[in-house]
Amino acid sequence: MDGITIREVLKLRNEEKFVEEDSIITEYPFTIFLNGKEFITLLCTQSSLDYLLVGFLVSEGLIDKKEDIESIKIDEEKGIGYVETVKKTNLMEKLYGKRTLTSGCGKGTVFYSVVDSFKSKKVDSNFKMNLEEIRDLVRKFNRYSEMFLQTGGVHSCALSDGKEILVFGDDIGRHNALDKIIGKAVMSDIALDDKIVLTTGRISSEIMIKIAKRGIPAVVSKSAPTELAIKIANDLNITTIGFARGLKMNVYTNIDRYL
Amino acid sequence: MDGITIREVLKLRNEEKFVEEDSIITEYPFTIFLNGKEFITLLCTQSSLDYLLVGFLVSEGLIDKKEDIESIKIDEEKGIGYVETVKKTNLMEKLYGKRTLTSGCGKGTVFYSVVDSFKSKKVDSNFKMNLEEIRDLVRKFNRYSEMFLQTGGVHSCALSDGKEILVFGDDIGRHNALDKIIGKAVMSDIALDDKIVLTTGRISSEIMIKIAKRGIPAVVSKSAPTELAIKIANDLNITTIGFARGLKMNVYTNIDRYL
Repeated sequence: MDGITIREVLKLRNEEKFVEEDSIITEYPFTIFLNGKEFITLLCTQSSLDYLLVGFLVSEGLIDKKEDIESIKIDEEKGIGYVETVKKTNLMEKLYGKRTLTSGCGKGTVFYSVVDSFKSKKVDSNFKMNLEEIRDLVRKFNRYSEMFLQTGGVHSCALSDGKEILVFGDDIGRHNALDKIIGKAVMSDIALDDKIVLTTGRISSEIMIKIAKRGIPAVVSKSAPTELAIKIANDLNITTIGFARGLKMNVYTNIDRYL
Repeated sequence: MDGITIREVLKLRNEEKFVEEDSIITEYPFTIFLNGKEFITLLCTQSSLDYLLVGFLVSEGLIDKKEDIESIKIDEEKGIGYVETVKKTNLMEKLYGKRTLTSGCGKGTVFYSVVDSFKSKKVDSNFKMNLEEIRDLVRKFNRYSEMFLQTGGVHSCALSDGKEILVFGDDIGRHNALDKIIGKAVMSDIALDDKIVLTTGRISSEIMIKIAKRGIPAVVSKSAPTELAIKIANDLNITTIGFARGLKMNVYTNIDRYL
């Protein structure tokens, strides 16, 4: 399986000690050249690199739709993605000009300033989910990530209409996993304003901002949201569900819709 | 408790549905001014900000020891940390000059280029741990993070001599948590070349590089290491233990020492 390395590992299990082969998740350095210039190196899982590239540019606000891209070429062996955009001006400056870099908390995309979040538009949708159906959906989602089951080392993300998994992505980074499904949706002309994002990772402000920027009305996580993410979701009408595990889940925003 | 917000949350538990107060982890934007210039904004947990600041600068290779710092002032209300270094030249350039930024996979520090890793020196130590003692240590470590127990939303890190927890830090970001304990060790003149790092988070290459840069001989995680992290650890003689949970653990590097 791509993205996995087999290694001998010394295992302790109760009183036993033995050497056994195990699956290790690979970190793949993937360098993006934007309009001929070296732009950024992402450490990621070697899958769906084209979607990762597109999703990253979309999340960073450098492109908005499929038509903004002139060409994409992926050299998997060298770990390089070449992208040409239709508009070529000011992209690098736009990114590197931002002095306030967010960092540290789980990171992912580097370049959002915190205040950026509040430039996102309110989600228009009166999108309402059936919470019982969401439980079934989370069960399906859990079974999806073969790589997680093999290595325990990746995060997964999915897009859903509330019933089925439409797009699925996984990566060692929860930000990359989200960028992969956003990239796939953008490239496949899948509308995002009536979809749910499912994620195994925590919902930090940066994750919420990516979701808000695409007008996605709801996010469901197996893990915890942060207070800043909830604040943004409240401001923008994004439904936020956390700790969705088995028969449990917590609804943090738009509570009234689900009472 | 600092860093926690209480919110009303709609809870589903089996067939029940009720609104109840819950503890949410706060993301605190913390902006560092380096020698009078705005430098970076970290999204973090509002605790041990001085240690975070120092640890971040150390991990980024901008300073190396306590004596490199002239002064630190933290304005908690404004979320600003002011640091003056003894040498003032070229620090910003050093950081922003690097074109290859790593990103995405869990991130943390932004500025390592992947190849940076291989500039770290081999860990000299013949440091060997008693694996049974490590199990006890992990148990102690698990009980330490009050914030995790309350919110489920933070990562923890600790420094240990193999027996006791000497320094503890937690944060919404696993990178920040590590920087906090490195910062505290640097400020308290605690040697790192005979200590173990314990972490709840995955061991990615960036985490391993931080550990390698300080000459720390061993890391123990409750979670998975990546293949690139293992490769770096192999090259530098750093013992890597993952999935340390209960009576289980996996040793990925320096296996011969523990057979």
